[in-house]
Formats: sequence, structure tokens, C-alpha cells
Amino acid sequence: TYGIPFKDCLILVYTAIEEADFLAIDGEFSGISDGPSVSALTNGLDTPEERYTKLKKHSMDFLLFQFGLCTFKYDQKDAKYVTKTFNFYIFPKPFNRTSPDIKFICQSSSIDFLASQGFDFNKVFCHGIPYLNHEEEAQLREQTEEKRSQQANGVGTPSYISPSCSKGPAHVPDEHKDFINRVVEKVEALFSSTEKTVDLEPCTGFQRKLIYQTLNWKFPKGLHVETMEIDKVVKLNVCLRLLACDFYWSKGMQLNDAVGFSRVIHAISKSGKLVVGHNMLLDVMHTIHQFYCPLPNDLQDFKEVTMCVFPRLLDTKLMASTQPFKDLINNTSLAELEKQLNESPFKAPQIEAAEGFPSYNTAKEQLHEAGYDAYITGRCFISMANFLGSFLTPPKAYVSAHSKLIEPFYNKLFLMRIIDIPYLNIAGPDLQPKRDNVLYVTFPKEWKTSDLYQLFSAFGNIQVSWVDDTSAFVSLSQTDQVQIAMNTSRYAESYKIQTYAEYIQGRQQEKEKQPPTSKSWTEDGWVQPHYPASATSSGFGYPRYDASARTYFPSSFMSTAGTSSALFEVPEAW
Amino acid sequence: TYGIPFKDCLILVYTAIEEADFLAIDGEFSGISDGPSVSALTNGLDTPEERYTKLKKHSMDFLLFQFGLCTFKYDQKDAKYVTKTFNFYIFPKPFNRTSPDIKFICQSSSIDFLASQGFDFNKVFCHGIPYLNHEEEAQLREQTEEKRSQQANGVGTPSYISPSCSKGPAHVPDEHKDFINRVVEKVEALFSSTEKTVDLEPCTGFQRKLIYQTLNWKFPKGLHVETMEIDKVVKLNVCLRLLACDFYWSKGMQLNDAVGFSRVIHAISKSGKLVVGHNMLLDVMHTIHQFYCPLPNDLQDFKEVTMCVFPRLLDTKLMASTQPFKDLINNTSLAELEKQLNESPFKAPQIEAAEGFPSYNTAKEQLHEAGYDAYITGRCFISMANFLGSFLTPPKAYVSAHSKLIEPFYNKLFLMRIIDIPYLNIAGPDLQPKRDNVLYVTFPKEWKTSDLYQLFSAFGNIQVSWVDDTSAFVSLSQTDQVQIAMNTSRYAESYKIQTYAEYIQGRQQEKEKQPPTSKSWTEDGWVQPHYPASATSSGFGYPRYDASARTYFPSSFMSTAGTSSALFEVPEAW
Repeated sequence: TYGIPFKDCLILVYTAIEEADFLAIDGEFSGISDGPSVSALTNGLDTPEERYTKLKKHSMDFLLFQFGLCTFKYDQKDAKYVTKTFNFYIFPKPFNRTSPDIKFICQSSSIDFLASQGFDFNKVFCHGIPYLNHEEEAQLREQTEEKRSQQANGVGTPSYISPSCSKGPAHVPDEHKDFINRVVEKVEALFSSTEKTVDLEPCTGFQRKLIYQTLNWKFPKGLHVETMEIDKVVKLNVCLRLLACDFYWSKGMQLNDAVGFSRVIHAISKSGKLVVGHNMLLDVMHTIHQFYCPLPNDLQDFKEVTMCVFPRLLDTKLMASTQPFKDLINNTSLAELEKQLNESPFKAPQIEAAEGFPSYNTAKEQLHEAGYDAYITGRCFISMANFLGSFLTPPKAYVSAHSKLIEPFYNKLFLMRIIDIPYLNIAGPDLQPKRDNVLYVTFPKEWKTSDLYQLFSAFGNIQVSWVDDTSAFVSLSQTDQVQIAMNTSRYAESYKIQTYAEYIQGRQQEKEKQPPTSKSWTEDGWVQPHYPASATSSGFGYPRYDASARTYFPSSFMSTAGTSSALFEVPEAW
Repeated sequence: TYGIPFKDCLILVYTAIEEADFLAIDGEFSGISDGPSVSALTNGLDTPEERYTKLKKHSMDFLLFQFGLCTFKYDQKDAKYVTKTFNFYIFPKPFNRTSPDIKFICQSSSIDFLASQGFDFNKVFCHGIPYLNHEEEAQLREQTEEKRSQQANGVGTPSYISPSCSKGPAHVPDEHKDFINRVVEKVEALFSSTEKTVDLEPCTGFQRKLIYQTLNWKFPKGLHVETMEIDKVVKLNVCLRLLACDFYWSKGMQLNDAVGFSRVIHAISKSGKLVVGHNMLLDVMHTIHQFYCPLPNDLQDFKEVTMCVFPRLLDTKLMASTQPFKDLINNTSLAELEKQLNESPFKAPQIEAAEGFPSYNTAKEQLHEAGYDAYITGRCFISMANFLGSFLTPPKAYVSAHSKLIEPFYNKLFLMRIIDIPYLNIAGPDLQPKRDNVLYVTFPKEWKTSDLYQLFSAFGNIQVSWVDDTSAFVSLSQTDQVQIAMNTSRYAESYKIQTYAEYIQGRQQEKEKQPPTSKSWTEDGWVQPHYPASATSSGFGYPRYDASARTYFPSSFMSTAGTSSALFEVPEAW
């Protein structure tokens, strides 16, 4: 039931990324938050720094265990997109006694939710693809080099990857023709059986090469071949068709394949292509944390690392919450967004799966399989991008992923449930709402929301955002009430009121006084949360982010399509 | 592929426990230790208190997700044991929005190990049986009572458990005979199909009762029946045979079934029967923690709770490490122990599976399925118990689980890798080795073991047990060297030496000064580590442990069979 071993699918992944116009991604995690509840952790008046710190603290010990990648290539001739969808199951399998023994948290509600969607946990835990981050890869490379120089004579199990395509019939020298024909016959016999392997007669490397060339020429579509030595018998593994989009970790794989899934992230990163996601901040954080380097403590450092790993991001939830879409779309959850974008004034896009790749029926929902969610996300992006073309003179039905019209949405990641900051601006400074109608109130821990309403009863409508047991933000409806409230509270003993500006200043001073704190369980062998200073300047050859060159401002399109002060609002659903 | 829904198997479990001579248990966990490594966490000179504290801190956030129970009943007539093996997959499925959202840690090495043994993770995460501890059960009981008084008219989905056995043919009144015959025909048709359910015509509660009685009489062996209402159609679920020992959580189950797996632990506890395990300290700790109450901070409190939940325990690893077995068994790991106990001077016991229950072939190992491990553990216990009979005059081939010969092994749980304390004495005070040849040395963190060897080079053989980065225990071969070492070190500046007695005294004083510390992540909604003071005196009706009545001392058998000073040694394998 699995497609093909991960190693053999890599060439397919590379090709798909290479030829794509844009990529869509989605991750499934073993949990969302290890805090008491998401709502208690996300305050409506969080600063971007606070939100980042909370997500880093309360979400990164979960495992990203399914990664969906859907590549979209535009076919000009037929005016349609062609997709290749990949579903990767990921598990940090320890390779040997010296490799890190990763621990991760599972949240029963998340696990139960995935179970109810038919998620196959055995694919993760028994066949999941391992990975190494940046630093671990470097360590392993050293070990492998040493081993290689010791084994210069080349013992070990040989293992070849079949070439992805073949240019013509292989030239088979006469003396090998009989041998090759026998193998081809055996492989053809597999088509009418449930067997998947052919035992090979003893043969040379050259003969194996001939086998690959011949098979790839004779069966160009979806036949993938690898050899494996099991108990001294060389077997030919044949995957007849690439009908499934699941990839598994094969037992025959070598220690230096351990970089595993991280290779896919490297390929996405190096391509520099637009990467689309839906409400993708956690996906981006997890991807970097697991496959590149532990997340930095500082938000600015995180932004820099993100620009290295994903130089061009687009969040469809943010896009759908922004004009001109904001007024047309009332529910920006992925499933609802997809439905609304199939109807007027939007148009369902023409999309087809590449041959051998899975095609999805959007009528029959398969949400929360990462590959399917990535596909739907890309689909939503296309609909919204094309809709922007209707504002042009003359209108255009197709707007490419490279169009200037898309640029205002680049590198802005949706921020859940923050009242006045709709997005995290990865490529520049964040929006700084004034919040001059906001008070920070501290009080005894017995107080409830009703006590706050009573305290401010003279000021009409207020909005309460709890910070912790003994403090909350109170937003007044009018800014000029702030001074009155401050004056009134001057002699209060049971509670204390500060303006928002005073609160921020106080926090800043506190931060400067205290040494940076590390998690208390770090010493127990958990993933180090500390940020290696060298991570952005060395390694995989990611381009170093140049902040000055990449700062985007609202384009003229944005300010004509909607009033700039009401560009965003806070949607309810995730 | 699953046996029967958990609810229907409970009656089987209760019966099996009721009729058993003794029980064997085993647990599989999502991880062992969240510290850097087991060896770094377990010091050879830990006190029992220290070891308990470490295990509690570093092991309880893993999930016990498979529980094996094997009941052993002695058949006097055929001189053989009859077993019933149960494999429970366990998962803390949240029932509704208010139920606790449990988080647990997975350790990739443990998960990978289980995967390599063919463990089915979907059985845990998709079909796992939920559980509630003591306190949660009380809360739910309240909620349910309220609901029941609201729904006094009895809407809801009716659901019946089939009686476990039937005394004779049911008397079916004439007017129902046609109906009942039609159902019986439909059920018989299932035997030659893959279907497992029969749609019932609308029928009364009385007719259902007739169905159960008739089916149980006609098919007395292994046929289990339940009704379920799905989309207004009442279906009859039929499990043809109890050939699998796996039990699953059925969707039709009610909120008040949520106590779930904890009922099995209650039944074991209430039975008061001997519970056998292999290296069972972690199994006992996890079982209490998950299904009874969060573990107490204090070792003495833990012992009391343990005596409430498991009034009579026996650890086969401890038994095998004790005379007269110690000299005959060189490897006490479960698999090796089982092999050695099949050979002279031991005898393989006569054991048979009860009809309808799985039988295991010990030649074809299925280790690390909890049910199988429990079975093997019980098997080892029987062999060792019977061996003790050979010392009697006249010798006996069969020694029952109730024999006085077994008593010296009661309630002593094997302690891994402690040099001079072989077991944790649940029913009384622990052994207090003198350790008067042991020094506690503190030094700069640059020091390595070789520095310690050099420092003590004048004293011949020493043994180093690291405590942390800057301290270690050093055991000298002769006690009279201690004073010399102390005198020599008096003016040392880079390091400091204390006697073991001084060290213990210092720790005791420190403990008295400081308030009890709680885990830093408790505030994040993790399982509360605090021990509810009321847990031992209320609740399930566990007998309160009477320490004075249950304290065991080495029996005369023990002191004749081996020299008491060398009764134990530290085995290498887990």
C-alpha cells in the first residue's frame, strides 16, 4: 500500500519542485499547545514578540509527523495547473546508539482528532522518514567520511537509485542480452502477480546499470526500481506504479541517508519558489525547528532564519482576511474558504494531477491529510490570485504566482486572535498599533471579569483580555477616558492601573535587567532551545537574508481596493 | 481483527480474575526516561528515596499504552495451569470539551523498538481504551447523576451487555418464536460471511433479552452479542469467537463507561490476589499514576498507596536474583530467564490456554507484547515456585501461589543497578546499607573519572559512581582507608571529601530547610504531581494498608538456602 521508498522518491520531489510555479505545504502535528488552553495562551493584545515566545515555548515540543507538499505547475497550452502531491510521514528514528534520542509530546485531543480522520499512525511510527537538522547532519557527515576511508575497498551493501527517466533504448552488448531479457521477462511476470521483488542472478555493476536503463526505457511511466541485498541474494524491488503519494523509509537504506526528510526542505529552500500555506506560522516554526535549527529566542532572529529557509512565503488565511477578499469571504477556515472560492464572484481553477500522482476529489473531503490540505491551500491561492486579475484593465483570467499583484501578500503570516495586528511581517518590522485606549490592570487573584466590568462601569463598553491570574488588559472605547481612569485609580490599594505604554516600557526594562532564561527541562536532554549564532551564516548555502532589500509596503493596489485602516479583521475560526 | 468491545470483555476479565490463583501483569510505555540517559539517572549508590524521586520525575510523563494481564488458574485434576491472557491498548481519549486533555511524552528509541517488534500503534491511538483516575471518576459520576435526573424518561441509546453464560434454553413465548428464529437464522448466516452485524427489526427490551438468551444457549462458546443503535437502526453486533486477546473501544459506548480501563485495575486490586511482574517497579508506578492517583512525593506515601492498590506483589526479577536461584541463573532478563527455567534443574510447567483465549508458543518468541510478557512472567514464577518444593521433605512438584514458601518474596520490587540495595521493600522499611567505605567527593566540573582514580591512587581499587558534573561517590575497598582519605584531604582546595554519613546528614538538613518543590511545568496543565492526602483513605474501597500486619522478614528458608550477606547481586541486564 505504500508508494515507493523515500530515497527513490527524492528525484521525483526534486523534479516536481524544479518545474513548479509555486509550492503549497501543510504539516500535521502530535499536538498544538502544552499550555492549559489555546485561548488562555493567546491574548488578543499580545505583541508579535510575546506571541512568538509563547508559541515557541508551548508548541515546539510536539512533533511535526506528516508533511504535505503539493507542487503546482502552470500548463500555458491547456490553461490549467498540473499538481504533484506528496505525503511524507516523519519520525525521528534513532540510527545508532550515539544518535540523539528525541522526545516529543503528544496531546490526546490532537491525536484523537487525527484518529477520527483515519490517520494511520503506523505509517509514522513504523515507516516514518527520519531527519537530521543542520548540526546533526554535519556531525554525521564527519562520521561517514571516517567510515568511508576505512572501508575504501567498498564492502557494504550496494544500493542504486533508478534514474528518473531514460533518453532512449539502452545499448545492450550481445554478451549481456540473454541475461537482460531474462530479467525483463521476470519483471513483466510481476505485472500479473502480487510479488514485488525479483531475485537476481549474480551480476556486475555494469549489468545492473543495463537492467535499469532497459527497464526505464521499456516501462517509462511509474516504474521504479532498486536493488537490495538480503541474506546474500540480490533482489530487484519493483514499484509498478506511483499511485499512492505516501513514501516510506526502507530498511535497506544507508546511514548517510539519515538526513532524510530534511533534504526535501533543503530543496524547497534552494528553489527560492513561492511557498503557500494556510495559517502557516506554526508550520513554518515547526519546519525550521525540526529540519534546520532550534528556534532562536529572539523574534528578529527568527525572521532572519525564516527568510533563509523560506525566502518567499504566502499565507492564504491572511490573504483571505485582507481586502479585496475580506468583504467577500466570511469564514477563512480552510474547508470553508475552499467552498466559497468555488462560487461567484470567484472561479474554481482548472487543476489536474500529473500522471501517476494522486488526484483529489474536493467534493469528497479528505481534509487533514497533509498532502490534501496542501493541495486545497494551493487551490485557494490560485482562485484568489486569479480574482485579483479582474481588477486589471483589461481584466485577466489568469494571474501567475510571479505576478506583482501577489507581492503585497508576501511574507506576512497570519496571527491568530490578535485584535489589531493581523500578521507577523517576516520581511520587515511589525505593525505597531498605538493601543492608547488600553490599560494594564493588576489586581488580587480573586477578581473575576465581572469585577473589572464593575470597576470600569463608568466608561461604557470595555473589552477585557486576561494576561494571567492577577492582570488583564482593559480596552476602553474612547482614548480620552484613559487619563480619567488613571486619575481615579491613583489612590487605589487593591488594584493598580498602568497605561499600555507604561506596561511595555516596564517589560522592556525587566527584560534588560534579567539574563536570558532557558527552559528548565533543557538539562534533561530535550532539544536545546538556544539559537546557534552561526546558523544563518553557514551550512546549506542558504542565502543570507538582506533585510534592507526585502521590506515590502502596502502597494497602491491595496489602498485602492479597500480603506487602509480597515484592511484586516480578526476571523473567528482557525 | 479485534476481539470484542472492551465493555463486553469486562465480564470475562472479572471472571478470569475471580477464578485465578494468581495474576501476572506487564506494561508497555511510550518511553522510559526523559533524562539524558538511564545510566546517568540511576546512580549505583542511590538511596531508595532518591531512586523513587528520579523515576517519578523522569518517567511518569510517558504513557502506559499497553497493559497485559494473564490470569493463572491451577487445575488440580490435570495438574496444569489454565491461562486467560488479555492485551489492553490504552489511550486517554478526551470525551468532551470539559474532560482533561492529557499530554504525554514519546521517546523515539522506545517507539522505534516497539515498531520493530510489530507493535500496532493504530490500536492504541485509534481504538485505545480510555481511563479515568479516582478523582476524575468522582467528577464524572456527579455529572452523570445530574444528566440522569434530567433524562429520567430514558431517551438515549439503550445498550445491553450479553450475559457471560446461560443456564439452559431460553423459554420463548409462542408469539415471539418467529421473530427469534429469524434473528438466529441471520446470525447463523454470519458464520459464512465477513459481516459482523445484523440489522434488527424494531423490537422491545423483552425481545432483546430473548435474543441474548437464545444466542447464548445455541452458541455457548465465544459468541458475544451487543446491540447498538446507529442512525435509528438497531444493529446486533456479533463477535463470533474470542480468538484474539485484543480489546477495543467501541464508538457506541456511553460517557459513563469512561472509567474504562481503570475498572480492570480496580478488579485486580479488590481481588487481593498475588500480582506477579518482571522488574515491575515502573509498571506499578505507572499503573498507580495513570489509573488511581498522581504519585505522592514521598516514598513512604507511595508504599502505602501501593499496598492499597496491589496488596500482594511479587517481582520475578528479584526472585531470580535471590537465593536459591541466584547461583543457578546467570541472566535475569525475561527472555533469558524463561529459557533457563525450561532446563534442569528446573522444569517447564504444564500450562494451557483456556478455550477461546490465545495460546502462546514460547518457542516462537512474541516478546514485548504486554500480554505475552505477562504470560511468560507468570510461567517463570511457576517454575521458580515449584523448584522451591524440591527443598521440602518429602519434595513437592507443585507449590501453589499461596504457599508459605513464596512469602519471603512478597512486596519486594527489584531495584535496577543499585550496588547494595537489591529491592524496594513496599511493605516495610528499606535495607540500610552502611556504606562506611564510601566517600562523597565534590570537585571542579573539568574533572574526569581519571582524575578521581589519580586522587585515590594510594588506596588501591576504587569504584566511582557519578552523581552530577561536580560530584561523585568513591567506594574504597577497605573501610579503614576512609579516615586516611579524610585526613589527607583536609587542606585540599580544589576538591572536598565527605563521608557518606556526612553527605546523607547534609541532604537531610537541606531537605528540612527547603519548601517542597513542584515541577516547573505543572502550571502548564500537566498532570498534577501533588499527592492528594485523601487518596488512601477514601474512594474505591481499597483496604487501608496496615503496616504492622504486613511487614515481612527473611524467613528461615531464606537463611538456610543462602548466606544472608550475599543473598543478592546486581544483574547487568534489565
